[in-house]
Amino acid sequence: MQIENLFIKRTKELPADATTSGHKLALKGGYIHQTGAGLYTYSPLGFKVLQNIEKIVREELDAVGCQEMNMPVVSPLSLWKETGRESIDVLLKFKTRAGIDAVVNPTHEEIVTDYVRSILQSYKQLPQSPNSLCLYQIQTKYRDELRARAGLIRCREFMMKDAYSFHTSWDDLNNFYNIILNVYHKIYDRLGMKNVIDILAPTGDMGGKISHEFQMVSEIGEDTIYTCSECDYRANKEVLTDKDADDILVCPKCGKPLNKLRGVEVGNIFQLGDKYTKSMSVAYTDENGKKQIPVMGCYGIGVSRVFGCLLEQSEDESKAVFNMAVAPYKVHIISIGDGEAKVLAEKLYADLTSAGIEVIIDTTDDRAGSKFANADLIGAPIRAIISPKNIEKGVFEMKYSGLLKEYSEQISINNIFDGVMEIIKKEQ
Amino acid sequence: MQIENLFIKRTKELPADATTSGHKLALKGGYIHQTGAGLYTYSPLGFKVLQNIEKIVREELDAVGCQEMNMPVVSPLSLWKETGRESIDVLLKFKTRAGIDAVVNPTHEEIVTDYVRSILQSYKQLPQSPNSLCLYQIQTKYRDELRARAGLIRCREFMMKDAYSFHTSWDDLNNFYNIILNVYHKIYDRLGMKNVIDILAPTGDMGGKISHEFQMVSEIGEDTIYTCSECDYRANKEVLTDKDADDILVCPKCGKPLNKLRGVEVGNIFQLGDKYTKSMSVAYTDENGKKQIPVMGCYGIGVSRVFGCLLEQSEDESKAVFNMAVAPYKVHIISIGDGEAKVLAEKLYADLTSAGIEVIIDTTDDRAGSKFANADLIGAPIRAIISPKNIEKGVFEMKYSGLLKEYSEQISINNIFDGVMEIIKKEQ
Repeated sequence: MQIENLFIKRTKELPADATTSGHKLALKGGYIHQTGAGLYTYSPLGFKVLQNIEKIVREELDAVGCQEMNMPVVSPLSLWKETGRESIDVLLKFKTRAGIDAVVNPTHEEIVTDYVRSILQSYKQLPQSPNSLCLYQIQTKYRDELRARAGLIRCREFMMKDAYSFHTSWDDLNNFYNIILNVYHKIYDRLGMKNVIDILAPTGDMGGKISHEFQMVSEIGEDTIYTCSECDYRANKEVLTDKDADDILVCPKCGKPLNKLRGVEVGNIFQLGDKYTKSMSVAYTDENGKKQIPVMGCYGIGVSRVFGCLLEQSEDESKAVFNMAVAPYKVHIISIGDGEAKVLAEKLYADLTSAGIEVIIDTTDDRAGSKFANADLIGAPIRAIISPKNIEKGVFEMKYSGLLKEYSEQISINNIFDGVMEIIKKEQ
Repeated sequence: MQIENLFIKRTKELPADATTSGHKLALKGGYIHQTGAGLYTYSPLGFKVLQNIEKIVREELDAVGCQEMNMPVVSPLSLWKETGRESIDVLLKFKTRAGIDAVVNPTHEEIVTDYVRSILQSYKQLPQSPNSLCLYQIQTKYRDELRARAGLIRCREFMMKDAYSFHTSWDDLNNFYNIILNVYHKIYDRLGMKNVIDILAPTGDMGGKISHEFQMVSEIGEDTIYTCSECDYRANKEVLTDKDADDILVCPKCGKPLNKLRGVEVGNIFQLGDKYTKSMSVAYTDENGKKQIPVMGCYGIGVSRVFGCLLEQSEDESKAVFNMAVAPYKVHIISIGDGEAKVLAEKLYADLTSAGIEVIIDTTDDRAGSKFANADLIGAPIRAIISPKNIEKGVFEMKYSGLLKEYSEQISINNIFDGVMEIIKKEQ
């Protein structure tokens, strides 16, 4: 991509509601555009990051046998009435022109359960963990929130990965739940999220017995988390107390004092049990020919919120830091001046593109400082800077700027393609 | 994928509204599940087809420099008021809990125009065709239709690729429009759609001057198309007459009689001009420092309708026929009996999967006839059938069943992996 063709808005004029560094970076770097309150357009730049996040989520879920599918954004209200959830506050209801009561789905337990009951007949269709039946989708959700905040952190419309598993026993549910708990940590690791912990969570509207949240520990978080100073106990405040207690609490496991932290919830998992399967009359025939109700788990990752969190953990509002897997472009080529540097830059661009690498190139007449500032906003981990001064010395400058380290090297200009490819291979 | 793990419903009990062979095949083969009237869930099998269609659409649009992005499904009604389209019948309107008038978008002209006006300043950002600015997305749309019909052919919610281009002149718009017209034919070709023609179309609600529809000629189509018996004139009935004339008309170009056909619209393209850019106050500064209004084109492909059309053009309601690029699985392995055939099948499955081929395997105890019937419903073009009888003869049976041809071969069992790979390479 030629940087001058990338149709995004880089702006210094930030709205008053952009208070976090990630929200500022999202707007300043042109990753998103606010179409309405809590409603965002992902620019061609932002959409690349979103797709890269989705790819990692898919790969890890597919690896444990989850099956991707796609359910409608709009559904009949009747499905929600079956479980008694038709009055939850974020559920947007409307009547269609054909006179049908419908909703824009904020989550899909009812919809997936309706799908499963249309198919499920025998216990043989619910294999034991780890090959349990688990269906998932990555899809737009709408929650009719009273307040949106912090850009991608709390939107009305957002991208979510939601998975649903079905089992013949609580043991199987529990086994599979733990598999997914580990898969989630692997996903956040691969995404380059620095500080995500799993904590005990309340079950709330969802029903069920056990739940964990995945929290990115961050000052901008809305949630209060307690972690034990001694043992491995970690929990959402709501698990520990019904009151709005502001005091430091004592660990219910070992009695030692708890640390109080703030966090952004980037995922949650629930052992739902039979709340949905029972009220929606899902049944299978067991080994003895007896009708049984399956138990269910559900597993969410806020894909667009993860994007927001990656921007929050970037260096500051002027510098995006992604790992190679998530970065919208892997290499950013900058040439200074019009002569040989530009020719070499274009040759490198053509060669890397042919090799299947996603590259952005800046051979514009902009000042060098402005080019570097744009490269910081775009966040390609590898930058190749080709200037007349360095060409004279027979080298170009290679900078790596990733999540955990930064370094720069001068590489022989005769070795420009191989030199960059070597760094790509090393850092991937 | 082991066929017994694929969580879909194959059913013989079809609803009364499933009247076309494609709609029947979609349900019988378990590609979709009806969540509500005109609201479908794509099963793990159906979603694979949908993704394969999307991949081809993406590749061809990216190849001509279009930039993928993503706009919200829900938007403020205020954007629709700017163009006076707030009263079109399929527009679903609602009030949010926060008191904002909002819509579920049936199309995104207003939304993309709002994005573009937030960025566009100079003519330099609108390069001449073929490098024109064109933004697109593949996304869920909702149209509040009074009647849904024929499964994926006319849904309320559907998957659409919508692209929008912006230009400094009608000439550039026209050039780019013709590029996209050719890209569309390439897309339909690659998808294996047999009988798609472009015809002159009315501009209708969209405004603008010139429009073409891409119609799959089919008896199940809702649209009436006229094609000239002599020259290349082809048009939608609505272009030719305002009356509900049932008579054969005469070609307006050469005066010869017209043929009357039925078609399903699988794409449409419009030269919109300044209808949206003018009413929404989009402006750029030209070479002379003068403010100008850009002209605009828009380009849609009904991705889920294309899926429906591919099922319609399949052999019948019991046999899906896809090309290699679109098929949910490329190879379907069937073993008969429990002994060596099963072992060889599993070995072939492991080897093909390692080679990155999407394979489905049936080593179940089902009757051979039932296995073949399921393979017909799934529509993998290549089938490898391994039976004790053929093993005795030192061979296995390889069947290819694609869009344009069918053939079968007996290949040496010693050569099983290479034999299948050779067919894959030949037919890809």
